[in-house]
Amino acid sequence: MPSDLRCNALLFAFSAMGVLAIVSGSSKLTNASEPPNIVFIFADDLGWGDLSCYGQRRIKTPNLDRLARQGTLFTQFYVAGSVCSPSRTGIMTGQSPARHRIFGHLANRESNQRRGMPDALDPDVPTLTDVLKDAGYVTAHFGKWHLGNVSPDQYGVDAFRTDKFCNVAGKQAIDIWSAEARPVCTANILDATLDFISEQSDAPEPFYVNAWFSDPHATLNPSPDQLDRVKNLAPQGVPFPGVAQVYYACVLEMDRQVGRFMDRLEQLGVADRTLVLFSSDNGPEDFQIRNSAHSGVGSSGPFRGRKRSIYEGGIRTPLIVRWPGHVPAGKVNRTSVISGLDFLPSLAAIAGASADAVSDGDGEAMDDVWLGADRERRTPCFWEWRYRVFGHPANKPPQLAVRDGDFKLLVNPDGGRVELYDLASDPGERDNVAANHPDVVQRLTRMALQWNKTLPDSPRDPGAGMESWRWP
Amino acid sequence: MPSDLRCNALLFAFSAMGVLAIVSGSSKLTNASEPPNIVFIFADDLGWGDLSCYGQRRIKTPNLDRLARQGTLFTQFYVAGSVCSPSRTGIMTGQSPARHRIFGHLANRESNQRRGMPDALDPDVPTLTDVLKDAGYVTAHFGKWHLGNVSPDQYGVDAFRTDKFCNVAGKQAIDIWSAEARPVCTANILDATLDFISEQSDAPEPFYVNAWFSDPHATLNPSPDQLDRVKNLAPQGVPFPGVAQVYYACVLEMDRQVGRFMDRLEQLGVADRTLVLFSSDNGPEDFQIRNSAHSGVGSSGPFRGRKRSIYEGGIRTPLIVRWPGHVPAGKVNRTSVISGLDFLPSLAAIAGASADAVSDGDGEAMDDVWLGADRERRTPCFWEWRYRVFGHPANKPPQLAVRDGDFKLLVNPDGGRVELYDLASDPGERDNVAANHPDVVQRLTRMALQWNKTLPDSPRDPGAGMESWRWP
Repeated sequence: MPSDLRCNALLFAFSAMGVLAIVSGSSKLTNASEPPNIVFIFADDLGWGDLSCYGQRRIKTPNLDRLARQGTLFTQFYVAGSVCSPSRTGIMTGQSPARHRIFGHLANRESNQRRGMPDALDPDVPTLTDVLKDAGYVTAHFGKWHLGNVSPDQYGVDAFRTDKFCNVAGKQAIDIWSAEARPVCTANILDATLDFISEQSDAPEPFYVNAWFSDPHATLNPSPDQLDRVKNLAPQGVPFPGVAQVYYACVLEMDRQVGRFMDRLEQLGVADRTLVLFSSDNGPEDFQIRNSAHSGVGSSGPFRGRKRSIYEGGIRTPLIVRWPGHVPAGKVNRTSVISGLDFLPSLAAIAGASADAVSDGDGEAMDDVWLGADRERRTPCFWEWRYRVFGHPANKPPQLAVRDGDFKLLVNPDGGRVELYDLASDPGERDNVAANHPDVVQRLTRMALQWNKTLPDSPRDPGAGMESWRWP
Repeated sequence: MPSDLRCNALLFAFSAMGVLAIVSGSSKLTNASEPPNIVFIFADDLGWGDLSCYGQRRIKTPNLDRLARQGTLFTQFYVAGSVCSPSRTGIMTGQSPARHRIFGHLANRESNQRRGMPDALDPDVPTLTDVLKDAGYVTAHFGKWHLGNVSPDQYGVDAFRTDKFCNVAGKQAIDIWSAEARPVCTANILDATLDFISEQSDAPEPFYVNAWFSDPHATLNPSPDQLDRVKNLAPQGVPFPGVAQVYYACVLEMDRQVGRFMDRLEQLGVADRTLVLFSSDNGPEDFQIRNSAHSGVGSSGPFRGRKRSIYEGGIRTPLIVRWPGHVPAGKVNRTSVISGLDFLPSLAAIAGASADAVSDGDGEAMDDVWLGADRERRTPCFWEWRYRVFGHPANKPPQLAVRDGDFKLLVNPDGGRVELYDLASDPGERDNVAANHPDVVQRLTRMALQWNKTLPDSPRDPGAGMESWRWP
């Protein structure tokens, strides 16, 4: 990307979407640097409130806390979807997942068809890995994929090992779902990542790697050793472990493995020239889901909603960014709203990719914010969910949401059930202030409904967007 | 109780409390009857939403559903406290538990002293069992007690077998807490109850029995057989049961045992002349409590809050009343707000006890409502909680609450953090409408703060009445 593009705020107007993507300004640090290696670690169903650096008090997560101290922790990061596939599509394309008909999780053909979904993300859509590969990166993907039954190499991924789930495992699958594999799945994903990085550590090209976990997604099966590490959470005298014990054993193991990974990056001599991102694909699972036997105890922190919900708890997840000498260490950014849709334009800017590559995105280049700027976001964020939400009625939101500044509005596609929250004073979305701000309601409702009109249609669940309890 | 007292609404003005207790009118059915036997089954930490007749969908509770079809199910029943001892004190005395310094659960002497609490409910306070004994009943208590280290016979209880917890077990303790006992604790409590009823079935006096369970309070330990009955809730391929499986195995066993108990009442020929009450002492436990390993999955239905919270989910619990030919069968009463404080005056009226016995209560005689009237409550309900509430910040209410008509106001003792909910349209306490009803806020705030002034003082937790999350 030419520096004049990076040094001026260049606005791309997307007539189809009515929104703006901004390739931002102040990448002074990157100008002075070689493009860094990039590793993106993506946890699965980890809640915003599950790491001790985000306020969790049941166990310590010392390694992720250390990553946060060595980099910047963001309190206002959002994924673009409230479940796996949409959220991952948002990261990989920089575009709202519904534009690609990825409305929900990719499942079997029948289920996909019933919901008007494809069986995979269209490989012709430019992805983050396409963009970085074009910019001279060697790219790789290890672990969970969940973008459908098309091989990752069709998306600009040079090397990959993934799960059997979508029959695109590559040379050698990594078992991340069987009960036997669960205690070692995160270790195995990071081992594959480290093998790749070892090979690349002396190569002239920088690398980009997705290390996408299946922890702490259900069904969890920590080993006796792993359970023993959190035995303080065990119920007394009964012959089976406690639910928090099962869940946090897995979170703790994930934390340990990230620590081991970071130590190994140091030993390989690449840690200082590697940008490491850590996040989670959506909020914590709910107990109402049968296989979520133990994942339902995950924490959404102070937020309302869990996985599937477009209240904060379903879409606001941890984001830690570490790049020594470039990303401020020990900083907590509470000011800037970041979206998963920003990954592509932000990383493209950091990698020096062509501006064309990011010209049809829905995100905003926030590389300047990652690198230390404390500015507010310039563009709104949108979410949608067409299906039922399980669990407590309070966690079941309307089907559309828009955040603009500190205001978040939720509304159904028919214009009903309007809720407005001032997230600066009420991050938990408890006080609907729609009645006090008719002008804001009108403006944001129009934005949300106009955005919704640009999205493909698909069958919606009866009951989507409604609170419900089967009253006696 | 003379029939003229029962046939006219007689008002007792309690100058100390500023509230009214009303010994109500329309007990026409009781006039025509002998006083019935009474069995009060009290579950422990069962949520409003845990029975299928209250909307739970994970398992069926056919026996409690049948009890509801044979009697009346109330959707607006409240206990007087949000944890065990206060709630039980409210049932037994008909008075706000804080009047007796029972602010929280009775624990060891040190813990009680620290909180300004006695080690037991003062045995000089007239109790439900005193009143019914005086009215000619033979009284008994089986199972959990949790009213402290004074023997039940000091409270008008003729026969009892309880747990060792408070060293007042009686002739023979029932083990309801050890891991080995958990699979059979409900069965054992009901067996003791049935032994007593068998002995009494031909006696001239009616009987009153508390059958107070320890299910589904933590720590739960269902047997392999019990777990197997809900194997549809098991996680796949892992060597331990799922959390919902553990919890609902215990709920299902409780349901089975209540079914067996009702069948046995029929066989003994006493079912038709026995008033059976079923309820729970407070809302479902939270996972943040260490020993609650599996109880935390219990459901508060559509309500906000869990155990310890004075939001609805902590204090609104199931109430089913069955008395063939007297209490309407198959009815759901959605109109009438009932309190645990009403048990004493309502049962006193049904038992024909002296009016003096209920002259210093905080409840309202609702026997006419139990017997079919669909009237609104005439007196307000009050709650208070001086300690921390664990779990999700949204479940942490102010320290005081008052419900008057459809409005519920919550406020801290210093007048801060005012929340007003219209429970008719918003039973989930989602929309604080304080700003729209300044007159109601003023009136109910004054009521709550005046009520609070009548209560004994005690140390309060720092953080009581506050929402909180340890933000990064």
